[in-house]
Amino acid sequence: MDIPVDLETIRAAATRIAPYAVRTPVLTSHSLDKASGASVFLKCENFQKIGAFKFRGAMNAVLLLDDSQKKRGVITHSSGNHGQALAKAGQMMGVPVCVVMPSTAPAVKRRATEDFGAIVELCEPTQQARESTVQRLIDQHGYEMVHPFNDWRVIAGQGTAALELLEQAGPLDVVITPIGGGGLASGTAIAVKSLSPDTRVIGVEPARADDAMRSMISGKIESSGDPKTMADGLRTSLGDKTFAVIQRNVDEIVTATEEEMLAALRFVWERFKIIIEPSCAVPVAPVLHRNLDLAGKRVGIIITGGNVDLDAYFDSLKAKFIES
Amino acid sequence: MDIPVDLETIRAAATRIAPYAVRTPVLTSHSLDKASGASVFLKCENFQKIGAFKFRGAMNAVLLLDDSQKKRGVITHSSGNHGQALAKAGQMMGVPVCVVMPSTAPAVKRRATEDFGAIVELCEPTQQARESTVQRLIDQHGYEMVHPFNDWRVIAGQGTAALELLEQAGPLDVVITPIGGGGLASGTAIAVKSLSPDTRVIGVEPARADDAMRSMISGKIESSGDPKTMADGLRTSLGDKTFAVIQRNVDEIVTATEEEMLAALRFVWERFKIIIEPSCAVPVAPVLHRNLDLAGKRVGIIITGGNVDLDAYFDSLKAKFIES
Repeated sequence: MDIPVDLETIRAAATRIAPYAVRTPVLTSHSLDKASGASVFLKCENFQKIGAFKFRGAMNAVLLLDDSQKKRGVITHSSGNHGQALAKAGQMMGVPVCVVMPSTAPAVKRRATEDFGAIVELCEPTQQARESTVQRLIDQHGYEMVHPFNDWRVIAGQGTAALELLEQAGPLDVVITPIGGGGLASGTAIAVKSLSPDTRVIGVEPARADDAMRSMISGKIESSGDPKTMADGLRTSLGDKTFAVIQRNVDEIVTATEEEMLAALRFVWERFKIIIEPSCAVPVAPVLHRNLDLAGKRVGIIITGGNVDLDAYFDSLKAKFIES
Repeated sequence: MDIPVDLETIRAAATRIAPYAVRTPVLTSHSLDKASGASVFLKCENFQKIGAFKFRGAMNAVLLLDDSQKKRGVITHSSGNHGQALAKAGQMMGVPVCVVMPSTAPAVKRRATEDFGAIVELCEPTQQARESTVQRLIDQHGYEMVHPFNDWRVIAGQGTAALELLEQAGPLDVVITPIGGGGLASGTAIAVKSLSPDTRVIGVEPARADDAMRSMISGKIESSGDPKTMADGLRTSLGDKTFAVIQRNVDEIVTATEEEMLAALRFVWERFKIIIEPSCAVPVAPVLHRNLDLAGKRVGIIITGGNVDLDAYFDSLKAKFIES
């Protein structure tokens, strides 16, 4: 497969989205450096618009629409950050947005997407229903599809985070990215390998959703199944575009157990005092637990987002101080 | 009472602690501005050393010791942030630290203080036992007492956060600080009123721990009792020094209910993606709920710390993904 995204495409995306996206900070912590033995730089996309890196790719895609497409609007399927990101990008640019969600999606996710002015269409929670619903709505309204990850415009947009990371942190020996559908991993790998060919790019996925690793071994896209993992953003399988990019540009794929992820998540919350979502803990886990050979290395990690279900914490406070 | 802390004292403290303390960031958010109708600047001391502003005052006190005092060491009573702050300051400067805690203090608090190299001495959980234990240890070891808030060195150190806030945010119409024992409120009020006399200084305390407000009305220090509030850092009553400063320098004291605090806490966690402790939500609450006349005003808020008991959240994740 021809890969039309390169350093220039990503740089153009960076210029395009710059007036709208947050140039998120890169944070460091003495305690993580001490625990890991490395110098670790967290690129904090939890501070991005809508609380996740997904805004970058969605905004790039919206800004690349021609006038006729802008008028008809865009569609995607997502019950998570990509749906909100596309809704927000459309709202900012006055482009209609339709998001197809399974009828099983939590009401709070639906509301968050609608709050950004998008139309939410529900479908049965199967892949077939999702695809036929999207197609029906495209036929009806002439929407342009913006896939959550298997879309070159989205991949180029996601690559802008790594571009900033390299500018902000300086030279890095290793860049670590989570792998779900592979949009972020693809954009990151292209950006890093173009700018700094000697920097290793390592992908991490939950041990229970190790489909990317299996795909690299078998040479074809393996399904993730329906894995039970706290990293709910990483349950997706690769697409043909992201598979091609990752095959060529990612040096190594490793996995993290749920226990390792939980410890890494807590470490970042407690030491950095920032809220990151469980999926973000996946690339932190092998660094914290020294499962990779990173002693003395300069290591960048993309922290993907901060949209967390906080009910458990706030319900406990409420029960203790308000209801009792 | 003569008040020996002024702008010069606080500036000297700032210079003294600068090599050791974090110059914490000031964060803003479009969503808080929209909800409050004001331009709000959060001075984020949750990113300070040991995760709380208390490091400033403790470090200033340690750096002001003479050689003989440095050798004998310092003592305080605290089961919270001040104990950890003094322990950390002592560890950094090679000064012995003893922290007296009630025997009822959680083991995790004791461990955190010991991890910074301090000796922890337990006593019965009464004020009398605490005072006699401290006195006995001073008699035995010649420790210098560093009170958590009723100490001019500590008050001057806490004032350095407001100094930075004014530098970082620019001119402010209002600065809002929580009031517990009054150390932060005192240092903040002196710094703000000296640098910018027209800026209003507003103190906020939990409605269930409104002793400072009652003290201002009665003209003498009123006890907070043993209030049940999620703002566990603000259950303390004022000391004679902090009472004198607050009487002269704080323009207004208001209160926040537990419900208002919970909503403010959740708002900051979800929108800023940062972890702040429940005590920090107290000054945010009247801004978010528009209980003060702040429309169009530039408002600075001191966010005191980020040391939170996160068990409820992490236990729920563990139960869902690891143990089931």
